[in-house]
Amino acid sequence: MEFVMRPIGIIHSPFQEKEQTPIQPSRSQAQGRVEVYPEFAAGLEDIEGFSHIILLYAFHQSSGFTLRVKPFLDDRLHGLFATRYPKRPNPIGISVVRLAARQGNILQIEGVDVLDGTPLLDIKPYVSEFDLRTATRSGWLEGRGESQ
Amino acid sequence: MEFVMRPIGIIHSPFQEKEQTPIQPSRSQAQGRVEVYPEFAAGLEDIEGFSHIILLYAFHQSSGFTLRVKPFLDDRLHGLFATRYPKRPNPIGISVVRLAARQGNILQIEGVDVLDGTPLLDIKPYVSEFDLRTATRSGWLEGRGESQ
Repeated sequence: MEFVMRPIGIIHSPFQEKEQTPIQPSRSQAQGRVEVYPEFAAGLEDIEGFSHIILLYAFHQSSGFTLRVKPFLDDRLHGLFATRYPKRPNPIGISVVRLAARQGNILQIEGVDVLDGTPLLDIKPYVSEFDLRTATRSGWLEGRGESQ
Repeated sequence: MEFVMRPIGIIHSPFQEKEQTPIQPSRSQAQGRVEVYPEFAAGLEDIEGFSHIILLYAFHQSSGFTLRVKPFLDDRLHGLFATRYPKRPNPIGISVVRLAARQGNILQIEGVDVLDGTPLLDIKPYVSEFDLRTATRSGWLEGRGESQ
């Protein structure tokens, strides 16, 4: 069984190289631009009503994967699925960003953490009732918060 | 440009038909089971440290899409990307669920909202710092909360 995904747009960001890219959007105030291809633009109607959106995208510069990785925020090995490491069997990334404005098929976003030119696969509205959870345990990431 | 995705496992749930399936996990206390295929099981190491995980999966029973849809929670048309409607250009679903336990390559989960047999594409740890946002505006979904 396989599923073929094709980009619906492209994410523009200030980050040209992996080394510059923030680890997660909460660590980034960077502004970016989501360009949705014109043939999909009608699907953006009403999206400006949401303060935050979820971007799904392809980690297009990542290939291959290993099942145990040393993530950016730690120096020990962890199971890949206990990390957000980009090299994954299905290299799909997700980021919650703030939607600042829409002009036609262009979304102005804040808190972007992806490489410039990242292929966009989907956009979903961020809805607290669906997506906000009180995580009581954050595994190996505990204590590796914003202060570090 | 295209990306070929192949399942890394399968999500088992009590829901055999679309009509039975809760609209979102926050509306569901249903228990389910994520079966990660043995060849990917090593990637689960340390995942039990997280109280919540993000499942990415294929809406395998959805085909085609239209750019303006009438979502389950409303009777007006909205742009597809302002909804969580399953028929999308790239039919990827995401759900935040509670991770109750792990036995080897099997994850016991709570709050599942997908069809039994849904192909799993990825698992990521849910990390409040990355994923939790205070959404100030929820567009057309505002006021369509748990009470309705």
